[in-house]
Amino acid sequence: MGDKANVVVIGGGPAGMTAASRIKRIHPEWRVMVFERSKYVSYAPCGIPYFLGGYAKDIEELVHYPLRVFKEERGIEVYTETEVVEAGNGFIRARFHDGSENTFSWEKLLIATGARPRIPPIPGVELSGVLTIRTLESGEEARRAVDEAKRIAIIGGGYIGLELADNLRRIGKSVMLFEMLPHVMPTLDADIAQLIEAELIRNGVDLHLGEALQALEGHKKVEKIVTDKGEYKVDLVFLATGVTPETHIAEMLGVRKGNTGAISTDPSMRTNLENVYAAGDNAEAINLVTGKPDWFPLAPVANKMGYVAGASISGIEATFPGALGTAITKVFDLEVARTGLTEERAIKEGFNPASVVIKANSRASYYPGGSPMTVKLIADRNTGRLLGAQIVGGDGVLARIDALAALIGKGGNVRDLFFSDLAYAPPFAPVWDPVIVAARVLLGKIEKE
Amino acid sequence: MGDKANVVVIGGGPAGMTAASRIKRIHPEWRVMVFERSKYVSYAPCGIPYFLGGYAKDIEELVHYPLRVFKEERGIEVYTETEVVEAGNGFIRARFHDGSENTFSWEKLLIATGARPRIPPIPGVELSGVLTIRTLESGEEARRAVDEAKRIAIIGGGYIGLELADNLRRIGKSVMLFEMLPHVMPTLDADIAQLIEAELIRNGVDLHLGEALQALEGHKKVEKIVTDKGEYKVDLVFLATGVTPETHIAEMLGVRKGNTGAISTDPSMRTNLENVYAAGDNAEAINLVTGKPDWFPLAPVANKMGYVAGASISGIEATFPGALGTAITKVFDLEVARTGLTEERAIKEGFNPASVVIKANSRASYYPGGSPMTVKLIADRNTGRLLGAQIVGGDGVLARIDALAALIGKGGNVRDLFFSDLAYAPPFAPVWDPVIVAARVLLGKIEKE
Repeated sequence: MGDKANVVVIGGGPAGMTAASRIKRIHPEWRVMVFERSKYVSYAPCGIPYFLGGYAKDIEELVHYPLRVFKEERGIEVYTETEVVEAGNGFIRARFHDGSENTFSWEKLLIATGARPRIPPIPGVELSGVLTIRTLESGEEARRAVDEAKRIAIIGGGYIGLELADNLRRIGKSVMLFEMLPHVMPTLDADIAQLIEAELIRNGVDLHLGEALQALEGHKKVEKIVTDKGEYKVDLVFLATGVTPETHIAEMLGVRKGNTGAISTDPSMRTNLENVYAAGDNAEAINLVTGKPDWFPLAPVANKMGYVAGASISGIEATFPGALGTAITKVFDLEVARTGLTEERAIKEGFNPASVVIKANSRASYYPGGSPMTVKLIADRNTGRLLGAQIVGGDGVLARIDALAALIGKGGNVRDLFFSDLAYAPPFAPVWDPVIVAARVLLGKIEKE
Repeated sequence: MGDKANVVVIGGGPAGMTAASRIKRIHPEWRVMVFERSKYVSYAPCGIPYFLGGYAKDIEELVHYPLRVFKEERGIEVYTETEVVEAGNGFIRARFHDGSENTFSWEKLLIATGARPRIPPIPGVELSGVLTIRTLESGEEARRAVDEAKRIAIIGGGYIGLELADNLRRIGKSVMLFEMLPHVMPTLDADIAQLIEAELIRNGVDLHLGEALQALEGHKKVEKIVTDKGEYKVDLVFLATGVTPETHIAEMLGVRKGNTGAISTDPSMRTNLENVYAAGDNAEAINLVTGKPDWFPLAPVANKMGYVAGASISGIEATFPGALGTAITKVFDLEVARTGLTEERAIKEGFNPASVVIKANSRASYYPGGSPMTVKLIADRNTGRLLGAQIVGGDGVLARIDALAALIGKGGNVRDLFFSDLAYAPPFAPVWDPVIVAARVLLGKIEKE
């Protein structure tokens, strides 16, 4: 048996590093070890599309805190480029960069292995020039490949797919985007997704909706995409077909997973196994609207789960209340955000939703820089409770989605939103804020029925 | 006795026009009359500084809806340039632009007379070239006066004073700003107000703090300012020393006022007199933090009070929950916002406040256009309940103050804020949003004690 840790953390992403930092802050005397497969810790792969778009010059700019901070300032023992190849009761076995191995014992274990890209089960995905976005190394590889490519295909119209499309157009590439479903952005309702599709087309993205990838072909390097509707020559393919929780370590240990496929935990991030915790993109969280376990592979949620896991591992009472899947992205000149349930999902979850879509200006009409904003608001017809919102506009979208997320998180209803005392001044909002207009219209609709 | 109205509304500002519109929507058959002293209805005087700064070319751009909409589309009988000179039980007497008068009877009366500028009781305020901002006509007059002026003094460092300073510097004027108190912006704590003072000075405003105006001097036209510290030559003076509720109609009727000096109403906007309602800047509202009547002369609050008054007058159950005094403004390159109580006010109200001031970046560090943001968060030490917030930064301030306003309005605590599922993407926010960082630090501070 090798070294003894008080706590072993598997995975150096947001959840793992936040937890490790919290533990060392509460128990500076504990030995806390983090094992990370890649070269970097505390990174956000969500920055990679922007790295490809040239916003960040160096991939290390995507690192939230450098390794030095964790090692030297916080006293965490961090093993990068180290893979955990075995995990059992009270121990893990790690394989280092040089191929050597060591076994470490733990009193408490945190599984923070994150998520990995979902690879479609079709021929040719192993070809050179077929990329996924996960680690920062994959970002560096992608930039080199993008430099040499002219025609790039993106498979998948979720956040990463759209952000890749935006950033690759920005640097002058020819971009095809394939989405199997009839609309991009499955986290939006179709009526809102259409606005984004128009923006993609307006910016020269060759958009293929309702078209399923069947094969990738080429000699060593990918040269052609085959779908159910046609064949297309390409130099490079990004698979952005979503992510799946990385649970191989959990499986080795016999940790229980939930219906979403992610690890099931209690609100203090404890798994079914004593002294084994899970946090981040590999773990479930309560959906604050449905009250049921759900899966939100998003960095801010991972960070907070890590914070709670760290406290909990340290013996401090802490609970993670849950999340809403709030997200925002920029698609060319459109800001797109969502929180809570879509109308479609609300129906599936057994709610009786009422919804409105309104269009209003983001600022006082005479103040420059404003733009039209579309707000979709979804509430339960029976109780008036807000269930979700989707907002698209040229500016000011973050403010509105954050106000809604704060309110929905507290169980707010449409009336609460109408009476929210949101800020007003001509450079920032009209006197009747777009979300308040939406609340007023929805209130009228619900009350009339 | 002249014409018979079902409802008479005195004042055609945001509250009055919103109420009148609501009543006509519910009871299209009712005769609803609005009496407005100025030429315009549904205007926002808060736009006047921006009109002076050249953002709006025509003063009518500051009108939310044109008169035609109210008269023709909504069927409201609007009398502009008409002053209510007498009000009694069941009637008012109005004096029209041509000097003629008529008496109108009402079944229900809404007092929506708004607020008027507070004029300091010193010699010389009646001189030509001494202006206040209230009606749109005063904005037109101000623009003509500003065109001819080089050295302009602004008395008062509140929202209007600062917005005037910004807009007048923008068009190249020499600007002096006098504030009697040691800091600008009494709705902010001193530690935050200092950031704004630095910005004013950096932008060439000649800032005089803790200096009280004693007299204005000149031959017909103002030529000199006399303070307790010196004398200054000026071409034009703006008095921006705050507003006071306009209650002369209420006084004629014997309507009860509260401690703030504004009209006291129940949550349905009823005054102490049967069938007499009040809404807007002349009426009190509940402070959602203290639970006590307070006074918030702000357009969004006035609008919502008007909406509730309109429903209530129409016989529909409606209540106005209250407000937080949320406000935002732009001072040169700084966005400045606040909501709830300041720390100073929290102490006066008997809370035991804990506070933090943190500085964080508004966006992912590598994404362009971000800037440092200062967040002050105030919570009750005993309960953790959020009491107020103040935010200053170069961008993204609206989002943070709106999230806080939504949360504080629902009685949220520091933990709720920390776990708020706010939106993240590199162009909009860092993974740890500035307000979540503030919540984390404040949580640590409260829990340690």
